[in-house]
Amino acid sequence: MDIKQYMQDVGQQAKQAGQALANAETAIKNKALHTIADALLARSAWLQAENAKDLQAGRDNGLAAAMLDRLTLSDQALATMAEGLRQIAELADPIGVISDLKYRPSGIQVGQMRVPLGVVGIIYESRPNVTADAAALCLKSGNATILRGGSEAIHSNRAIASCVQAGLEAAGLPAACVQVIATTDRAAVGELLRLDDYVDVIIPRGGKGLIERVSQESSIPVIKHLDGICHVYIDDEAELDKAIAVALNAKTQRYGTCNTLETLLVAAGVAAEVLPALAACYAEKGVELRGCPQTQAILSGCGAATEADWQTEYLAPILSIRVVDDMAQAIEHINTYSSQHTDTIMTRNITRARHFLRAVDSSSVMVNASTRFADGFEYGLGAEIGISTDKLHARGPVGLEGLTSMKYVVFGDGHIRA
Amino acid sequence: MDIKQYMQDVGQQAKQAGQALANAETAIKNKALHTIADALLARSAWLQAENAKDLQAGRDNGLAAAMLDRLTLSDQALATMAEGLRQIAELADPIGVISDLKYRPSGIQVGQMRVPLGVVGIIYESRPNVTADAAALCLKSGNATILRGGSEAIHSNRAIASCVQAGLEAAGLPAACVQVIATTDRAAVGELLRLDDYVDVIIPRGGKGLIERVSQESSIPVIKHLDGICHVYIDDEAELDKAIAVALNAKTQRYGTCNTLETLLVAAGVAAEVLPALAACYAEKGVELRGCPQTQAILSGCGAATEADWQTEYLAPILSIRVVDDMAQAIEHINTYSSQHTDTIMTRNITRARHFLRAVDSSSVMVNASTRFADGFEYGLGAEIGISTDKLHARGPVGLEGLTSMKYVVFGDGHIRA
Repeated sequence: MDIKQYMQDVGQQAKQAGQALANAETAIKNKALHTIADALLARSAWLQAENAKDLQAGRDNGLAAAMLDRLTLSDQALATMAEGLRQIAELADPIGVISDLKYRPSGIQVGQMRVPLGVVGIIYESRPNVTADAAALCLKSGNATILRGGSEAIHSNRAIASCVQAGLEAAGLPAACVQVIATTDRAAVGELLRLDDYVDVIIPRGGKGLIERVSQESSIPVIKHLDGICHVYIDDEAELDKAIAVALNAKTQRYGTCNTLETLLVAAGVAAEVLPALAACYAEKGVELRGCPQTQAILSGCGAATEADWQTEYLAPILSIRVVDDMAQAIEHINTYSSQHTDTIMTRNITRARHFLRAVDSSSVMVNASTRFADGFEYGLGAEIGISTDKLHARGPVGLEGLTSMKYVVFGDGHIRA
Repeated sequence: MDIKQYMQDVGQQAKQAGQALANAETAIKNKALHTIADALLARSAWLQAENAKDLQAGRDNGLAAAMLDRLTLSDQALATMAEGLRQIAELADPIGVISDLKYRPSGIQVGQMRVPLGVVGIIYESRPNVTADAAALCLKSGNATILRGGSEAIHSNRAIASCVQAGLEAAGLPAACVQVIATTDRAAVGELLRLDDYVDVIIPRGGKGLIERVSQESSIPVIKHLDGICHVYIDDEAELDKAIAVALNAKTQRYGTCNTLETLLVAAGVAAEVLPALAACYAEKGVELRGCPQTQAILSGCGAATEADWQTEYLAPILSIRVVDDMAQAIEHINTYSSQHTDTIMTRNITRARHFLRAVDSSSVMVNASTRFADGFEYGLGAEIGISTDKLHARGPVGLEGLTSMKYVVFGDGHIRA
């Protein structure tokens, strides 16, 4: 197989299909989504048989239990995928929405219309549900998709892709609206990252290694999500019971997510009061604490935090703690070490809250709320294709609108420029 | 001079200054802008003396008259620059604006706050007014700026930069909010394009060669503007007098601008009626016509348009003309050859207008208006830093908002995720 030529063909077909999809009526796109959901349920036995091949290969290759778990298309997993597709069908169609249409002194009327980006390339690791989720989000937002999943999920991905094809066909949309790369050859990824003529944006979903490789190699813009080193700052004017509840929830509600708390900052004025109470809660949950010298002075037996701790996304029951002089020092710490994902202040003081909101340069900045709220569903986007830690284009949770662009539309009546 | 170290220092200082500027109050930024305007007028004799050094060097190096003209800081040019700064001061401050703040079922309140990008690098050619314009737009939008002008304007740019410094100082803002690269060494551009750790976006302003070089070399996202191959399609249901007026204005109001008409498409049903009348108007203006065979059959003496003509931005009194069967063929031509800048349909038919608006994938799509309206001032942006032909982030004329990003803000009252 000539990988280069194959990928060129994939790109070219995607671009053509994208033009048709950009003009598709909302009802057509929704019909495709519902039909895909129907197919996932109707073909569940076959999907699970295909999935079993991947699981067997995974076990043969010594894949970790957690990885095998993510790879499994259980009845529940298929039902969740189908439900996700129906939810995306229910979302308002962002395409074609015209906003801010206004008359100008020249007499022309100017507004902006939301339009698809064109072709979205998605590179992901073992979760086969991404095949359906990403295809559905791109479909609804009018973008053609090129999907490149992990080789360990190839049978599952192909089977899901055939359900997607059934949906496209039923709706009368071109098959190339969603293409799953047919080869497991790693060279295909490199080729995909250089399809500048056809692909408008690349979205990698997976571990840091994948995302860094994609960012470095791609000549196409990348919407990327690197670390989530999130902070909670407990101000000396915080309501301490709420501060403790939020600091506990932000760390322990789930350990492996990017919006999980990794470093707790506590104002010196309340550290002696709040830290022992919090440490008892964390101990109950089995969270290891690593503190600055002031923290260690308050919490006997607490390990020492090193410079490396402030820079680490643990994704584990470990928390680093630093006592700071005041909010200014907390903000300085956050703007130095935060991965600009999500940071929270706990305070009753509105002046401080306002200042923190403005001065912390992160994709989500919160007042008196758990960092765990930072995701597309909680924010009301309806669905998310990822969380962007970039500043350009989309920042924070990326929903349907993040997969679109705005073009200007102008109406006149024969107007000419003087 | 160690260029690499120098540029690293410039980048680091810009990043620090940007953090201060991001939090600056609106009145502080406006004070800086007005003071810069005052300084440009108060120091006009000195600015013109510095400018004279560049003009002399330009003449010695055989710079073309048009280039010397662009380089000249006449009284009028200085007054226009000062007025431009005051207009930017008058614009609403986009920074800190919170939109779509709404309560979610969880009880948290979620919105988006407009924030600066951080540090903007601007690389431009001979017009020294860009030094003041770009600095002002970045300042108002809370971004630190690194400016790299052409070596042929170095004395003028440095003199303008000293006025900018006077404004920053009067407002109590860090000097590094606006830095003009002190060396004319071309290696500085290469270093600037790789300051990923400090610079958030690069904006090249100049000819196609500059923009292509910057796009290829930069490891930082680029807001770029390549060709403007703009189209007017005269539908067979157009009002012909308006169609003729718009086609004439779009081509002849100015020849050298990116929103100038380069290819006229005419529906076969009205070609025999509209083309002779239009050709007479173009002849009066001295516009050379190059037509498809059908055009040539109608306009005797009209030259032949080749494939290359459909792909050419003339920036000159030359126009290519193609007769098309219908709107579908016009759209196909536009989506094949357009540079996705600005394209217009002339028609009375609302169904066709709606279809054209949706199907043409350009940054500005117009109905019954001249392509010449496609700019930031005409659209009401107040000012523009350029026109983007990209799809990600900013598309079309880029004003203050194009220099910003949106972060999520969340308010709770101790809310935790269940």
